[in-house]
Amino acid sequence: MGKNRLEAFSDGVLAIIITIMVLEIKIPHSDSWAELRALVPLFLSYILSFTFVGIYWGNHHHLLHTVKRVSSGIIWSNMNLLFWLSLVPFATGWMGKMNFAQNTVITYAVLLMICGTSYYILQKIIQNCHKADEHMKKMYQSQERKGIASMVIYSLSIVFAFFNTAISGVLFVVVAAMWMVPDRNIERMLEGER
Amino acid sequence: MGKNRLEAFSDGVLAIIITIMVLEIKIPHSDSWAELRALVPLFLSYILSFTFVGIYWGNHHHLLHTVKRVSSGIIWSNMNLLFWLSLVPFATGWMGKMNFAQNTVITYAVLLMICGTSYYILQKIIQNCHKADEHMKKMYQSQERKGIASMVIYSLSIVFAFFNTAISGVLFVVVAAMWMVPDRNIERMLEGER
Amino acid sequence: MGKNRLEAFSDGVLAIIITIMVLEIKIPHSDSWAELRALVPLFLSYILSFTFVGIYWGNHHHLLHTVKRVSSGIIWSNMNLLFWLSLVPFATGWMGKMNFAQNTVITYAVLLMICGTSYYILQKIIQNCHKADEHMKKMYQSQERKGIASMVIYSLSIVFAFFNTAISGVLFVVVAAMWMVPDRNIERMLEGER
Amino acid sequence: MGKNRLEAFSDGVLAIIITIMVLEIKIPHSDSWAELRALVPLFLSYILSFTFVGIYWGNHHHLLHTVKRVSSGIIWSNMNLLFWLSLVPFATGWMGKMNFAQNTVITYAVLLMICGTSYYILQKIIQNCHKADEHMKKMYQSQERKGIASMVIYSLSIVFAFFNTAISGVLFVVVAAMWMVPDRNIERMLEGER
Repeated sequence: MGKNRLEAFSDGVLAIIITIMVLEIKIPHSDSWAELRALVPLFLSYILSFTFVGIYWGNHHHLLHTVKRVSSGIIWSNMNLLFWLSLVPFATGWMGKMNFAQNTVITYAVLLMICGTSYYILQKIIQNCHKADEHMKKMYQSQERKGIASMVIYSLSIVFAFFNTAISGVLFVVVAAMWMVPDRNIERMLEGER
Repeated sequence: MGKNRLEAFSDGVLAIIITIMVLEIKIPHSDSWAELRALVPLFLSYILSFTFVGIYWGNHHHLLHTVKRVSSGIIWSNMNLLFWLSLVPFATGWMGKMNFAQNTVITYAVLLMICGTSYYILQKIIQNCHKADEHMKKMYQSQERKGIASMVIYSLSIVFAFFNTAISGVLFVVVAAMWMVPDRNIERMLEGER
Repeated sequence: MGKNRLEAFSDGVLAIIITIMVLEIKIPHSDSWAELRALVPLFLSYILSFTFVGIYWGNHHHLLHTVKRVSSGIIWSNMNLLFWLSLVPFATGWMGKMNFAQNTVITYAVLLMICGTSYYILQKIIQNCHKADEHMKKMYQSQERKGIASMVIYSLSIVFAFFNTAISGVLFVVVAAMWMVPDRNIERMLEGER
Repeated sequence: MGKNRLEAFSDGVLAIIITIMVLEIKIPHSDSWAELRALVPLFLSYILSFTFVGIYWGNHHHLLHTVKRVSSGIIWSNMNLLFWLSLVPFATGWMGKMNFAQNTVITYAVLLMICGTSYYILQKIIQNCHKADEHMKKMYQSQERKGIASMVIYSLSIVFAFFNTAISGVLFVVVAAMWMVPDRNIERMLEGER
């Protein structure tokens, strides 16, 4: 009941975040293909962030699925996650417009690390006040493992930003790909419920 | 349950896409009618895209109606569709501001083709994991036929863009009109369920 | 069922329309009170439009309340209404920025007339495919009477725009006030259902 | 039923308000850290307002929880609250961009006072047409006490704006912190219902 509204609000915020990013792709002042080509880095950063926010939406969806009772702690750690995710359009636009310049790539990586940490905090708080069955525990563990791997890769992408930001970009794609692979544990958890 | 949230998220994104397009119609700097008249091409492209996104919303609505179980494949092909649709405001604004210039019309047509293909992929993935009754099958077939016709007309509009972009514009209207005609098969499917 | 999604989509679009209007109130470049004072006309036009969209939301809510079956005609006349309402932020911003200049006031009045007509069309289409009980009929009639009165007042506001746009502005407020008075018929209809 | 749509609409508007604020953080024109540092005041004002809107969302949620019947008075006092909250992104952006300059801090404090008053009016109107049980009464009283404290602190922040706006900023944080502390009465009310 309360949970429905938490989901509705989070969905609303995530839907807006994922969509307003496109507002940063400003309409060119001429009709030449060159203008469109100049937008390619911005477009790439947009694909990347769209995917990340999409992943967060999906995971958030599964995570809240397990919530029975909405506490103050859940509301505020959820707000905290939404806050950091709301900065993604800014970091995306900066990275895209500056053609994946060093500082912007570092900022983007740091922001994703903060988002990941915020998600982890939300998960821990939900875990603390809900008994998890076997399937959920496995899901939590698998999410945690992926989370740690992401942190390591983000750190690497920061290091590589000092040498070649293209490699950092590829590392972001690696993280996204890792999360997009369907998680057998989630599927089993969902099946277990039915 | 999971489906509700997928619908809510998609509705949110589609509602935002359809509404932020209007933000491209910048407020004139004087109060002369001439300024308003200069916005007519942008306004026309806005009507067009509003109609297209509206059609996608309606069809998406009917398509998800048939979904019983949300799989990873459905989530991601839905995200893919939303991604391309999120670029519609950009393409619309460019085409409108450039007064339906050749390159912008081609870009718009190509984007609509990609959106159509993405929709087709989503439909195929939903079909693959759901048994369809007689009415649904007919709906799918009719949608597929319309989809193919749209692709052909979009291709024509690209060809005509090299000669006269007004014809391309008319072709877009033809596609929209074709989809707006109420589909007897969908109505029958909905009735069959009741 | 289908109705829920129609409501959700309409609510989403109306919520976005009512909120993005505020984006037209650009942040001043200095911290002087004079800058804030210069925004007063824009602010007034924003209050006006917020109220109008709020009224539409409320009426839309009561209107859809009576819907049992979502037809193609309802979907498209609803889309038509949303389309014209989506232009309200533009007309509001123009009127506010141009300090209620003649042309902008006329544009605003014409847009409100089109919105009113679109609402009327939606109501007629809903009425045509739903049997109305005594209470609903009274509500429809009272809405129709208010609708006609609004049209007359909007026409007057256009006439007065040629002499004194302040009077036109007052007339807009009169229309808004007329709709804000709680409708005994709606209240009775809602009670009748319980 | 009607309540659901009121919640959905309010959630939509609040989600948009909280997210579009970030659009005021414009993307820097270079990739230097100095540009990012220049955004710090804006960023701080954004955190503040995100928290305030989040608090309103949470309280609004609990308040509507007690509503059984949506009256005209509830709809319009809710609209009134949403209207003033919709101005928060503007006041936030102005305060942030002007580096917490005196006039902007006063404007922000006054806006928060109006929002608080609007919330209080909504609460009173809901209270008037609903019988409250013991737990609800305690919740209302505790909310009222916090509301009065907030008003006093906002007034202080206006006074301090004439000497040192940093103190005003700290006072805003104090108000936010006061509301973020989980309210035992709300928790008890929710438990009482189960």
